[in-house]
Amino acid sequence: MNVIQHDDKGRVSFGSWDFLIQALIVLNLIAFAIETLPGIPQGWQPPLRIFEVGSVTVFTLEYLLRLLLGRPRLSYALSFFGIVDLLAILPFYLATGFDLRSIRAFRLLRLFRLLKLARYSSAMQRFHRAFLIAREELVLFGATALIVLYLSAVGIYYFERDAQPEAFGSVFHSLWWSVATLTTVGYGDVHPVTVGGRVFTFFVLIVGLGIVAVPTGLFASALSKARETE
Amino acid sequence: MNVIQHDDKGRVSFGSWDFLIQALIVLNLIAFAIETLPGIPQGWQPPLRIFEVGSVTVFTLEYLLRLLLGRPRLSYALSFFGIVDLLAILPFYLATGFDLRSIRAFRLLRLFRLLKLARYSSAMQRFHRAFLIAREELVLFGATALIVLYLSAVGIYYFERDAQPEAFGSVFHSLWWSVATLTTVGYGDVHPVTVGGRVFTFFVLIVGLGIVAVPTGLFASALSKARETE
Amino acid sequence: MNVIQHDDKGRVSFGSWDFLIQALIVLNLIAFAIETLPGIPQGWQPPLRIFEVGSVTVFTLEYLLRLLLGRPRLSYALSFFGIVDLLAILPFYLATGFDLRSIRAFRLLRLFRLLKLARYSSAMQRFHRAFLIAREELVLFGATALIVLYLSAVGIYYFERDAQPEAFGSVFHSLWWSVATLTTVGYGDVHPVTVGGRVFTFFVLIVGLGIVAVPTGLFASALSKARETE
Amino acid sequence: MNVIQHDDKGRVSFGSWDFLIQALIVLNLIAFAIETLPGIPQGWQPPLRIFEVGSVTVFTLEYLLRLLLGRPRLSYALSFFGIVDLLAILPFYLATGFDLRSIRAFRLLRLFRLLKLARYSSAMQRFHRAFLIAREELVLFGATALIVLYLSAVGIYYFERDAQPEAFGSVFHSLWWSVATLTTVGYGDVHPVTVGGRVFTFFVLIVGLGIVAVPTGLFASALSKARETE
Repeated sequence: MNVIQHDDKGRVSFGSWDFLIQALIVLNLIAFAIETLPGIPQGWQPPLRIFEVGSVTVFTLEYLLRLLLGRPRLSYALSFFGIVDLLAILPFYLATGFDLRSIRAFRLLRLFRLLKLARYSSAMQRFHRAFLIAREELVLFGATALIVLYLSAVGIYYFERDAQPEAFGSVFHSLWWSVATLTTVGYGDVHPVTVGGRVFTFFVLIVGLGIVAVPTGLFASALSKARETE
Repeated sequence: MNVIQHDDKGRVSFGSWDFLIQALIVLNLIAFAIETLPGIPQGWQPPLRIFEVGSVTVFTLEYLLRLLLGRPRLSYALSFFGIVDLLAILPFYLATGFDLRSIRAFRLLRLFRLLKLARYSSAMQRFHRAFLIAREELVLFGATALIVLYLSAVGIYYFERDAQPEAFGSVFHSLWWSVATLTTVGYGDVHPVTVGGRVFTFFVLIVGLGIVAVPTGLFASALSKARETE
Repeated sequence: MNVIQHDDKGRVSFGSWDFLIQALIVLNLIAFAIETLPGIPQGWQPPLRIFEVGSVTVFTLEYLLRLLLGRPRLSYALSFFGIVDLLAILPFYLATGFDLRSIRAFRLLRLFRLLKLARYSSAMQRFHRAFLIAREELVLFGATALIVLYLSAVGIYYFERDAQPEAFGSVFHSLWWSVATLTTVGYGDVHPVTVGGRVFTFFVLIVGLGIVAVPTGLFASALSKARETE
Repeated sequence: MNVIQHDDKGRVSFGSWDFLIQALIVLNLIAFAIETLPGIPQGWQPPLRIFEVGSVTVFTLEYLLRLLLGRPRLSYALSFFGIVDLLAILPFYLATGFDLRSIRAFRLLRLFRLLKLARYSSAMQRFHRAFLIAREELVLFGATALIVLYLSAVGIYYFERDAQPEAFGSVFHSLWWSVATLTTVGYGDVHPVTVGGRVFTFFVLIVGLGIVAVPTGLFASALSKARETE
């Protein structure tokens, strides 16, 4: 049974079978999305249920193998991914015993398994290193962005609260406008209508776009540097 | 007949005439767009038809020349662009024999000819080299972006499904919101209205904008590097 | 009393207590936002008032300490942050004497205290240095962006004023469209409907996006350089 | 009269007075915008008229000085900026002789004078040099962006023409959607409603955002390089 290998930390790896397990996780996420569809035909229920049972069986088997074959034995149970794996399969067994309504919300925990995808990839470590290089600037820009968001919310609140008491009723209401505007998403559900509010928006955007967009450039250059020093 | 040359792979090249063929392709695309106009005047039909016949004649002639003069002879028929060229002119001859309604849909295949523009340009190779340099990161970010899209769709589904059962009826419905939001397009047709959904959107945007925007910076720096190593 | 230190310019610093004062500023800002909420329950008023009185007490104490212990003594009163600090606590004492309605508008001055956060961080200096490196380009791009905004507003005014006299009634009205479009916020409250206006928008976006987005890239690269030369 | 200097090409320069002329141009542009305001009070007309006459006098004087003092004499009349200057003041003299209605449209020519701002700045030359460095890529990306715009317009046309015959009536109608979407402006006046159209939009955005956003990064890095080689 040379499929099962151990890495230098004694963790179990299934070689190319790992890829199949990852594929099964992705299929599970798609199945989860399908189950949320309203008016799903009755005929779809049995195959979805069978797929659910089948994949939980695989995940349970994988969990047990990792638990029994890991070195030192049972150490997997207390590792981060061991707990994630348990939380990902536990809801299924619990749900069969209790009220069926709560199944959906519990299944959200299966999303944690996606983190496994991260563990396998060595490139994610480069991502992590780039994060360390630019950490200080990212924190500073994050803090500055929050301050800009707050200040622009306070500003627009004073300009628009009389003209649009519904949309700009408080600083918290205005914060929603700040977020949608400074990220340039601009849904259009709230936007300034007064002259003062529009002039203010102009200045907010000039300052704010840079604050919000610069970290991206910073991180990209840090990633380039992380690749060079490899 | 020194217009016709052969490159080192034995493919036929028409020298500066290639440019005219490319221009004809662009004119064909414009003509295609004009034909889709509703309420197009009757008087425009004959010149469009004449242009269509004329350009297919040129493309057919070009195809035959490439087929007969290529080395080894007829090898063009099985090359990628040989098949593209055939698919681009075939619909015209087929459409005259069959129902005229299907002409339009078939003509879409002519778009493939645009790929020829790519073959000729040497700068596209630099583009390709940059893609190879940043490939690993681009794949990683592509995967991460998909995961972020999925997670944000699941999240907003739980926050907004009760308040807006129409727009956020399932994870698939919510995915449309995720795409429009994380790319900052923000059409405004769907947007969160609950406090929870808006706070969630805020955090999704902070994380998501970087994920979606960083690959662009990565590719730009890879292109700079590709130019330096030329 | 070794908590109080002096930096090389004779300014008072409270060591790790500075962090607590900053946290108090942030809490004050949140409290300010909560007070703007319409229909705030009566029960929330007393704790908010107590928090207000308490934090002003701390800020007043801090101001007096900085004033008395600074070298040379009282020099703090005329320094930039000394004036900011005074303006931040003065409204509270004035408001108790005068009409209570004007409290809210006055409290906006407390936002100035956030600038203190900037003084403490050494990374903000790197930010400042990057600004100096890219200053010339940023000014140029700022001026060019303003010209592009103006020209696009004049252009769209001529294209859309007849079709949408409400939204594009003057160059100033059109400027609002220019700002929302060139920053890609795109609220959707004003957008061209004529063919000419849409073709014009296309060209404006091709030129304008670069003008508006390039400074961000410039600043990011300047920040990288500022970190290297440290 | 040492205010008037000659640069190495024999062109007239007014030293620090040039700045005043530039300021006058900016004031003229603001005045132009004010004149387009609907319902402008009668009282504003005379001062605007006086300002107009005054600034044209200054510009005429400047033109004559440049014309008479340039070396070789009168050579300014045929230079690019000589023609721009003439076109900027001519409408005023013509408009007094002819119908007053046409004044507004003519005055748009004064915008050309803004190009003078560009001539004076030495930093604009760095801008120009960066453009030359990245020219090839910018052309390639420009062409690719146009192709992506066209292809996405054709694609969405097939997906949405039946569901929304108004908004997606032809490829030209769909092009408006392509422009608004790929630049992430997203006004929201047109957006896909079918499942196919939305999935298509997803893929278009993944490919298209890079195509549209990469040139910005390219230009920013070219500008950095242009500054280094100075």
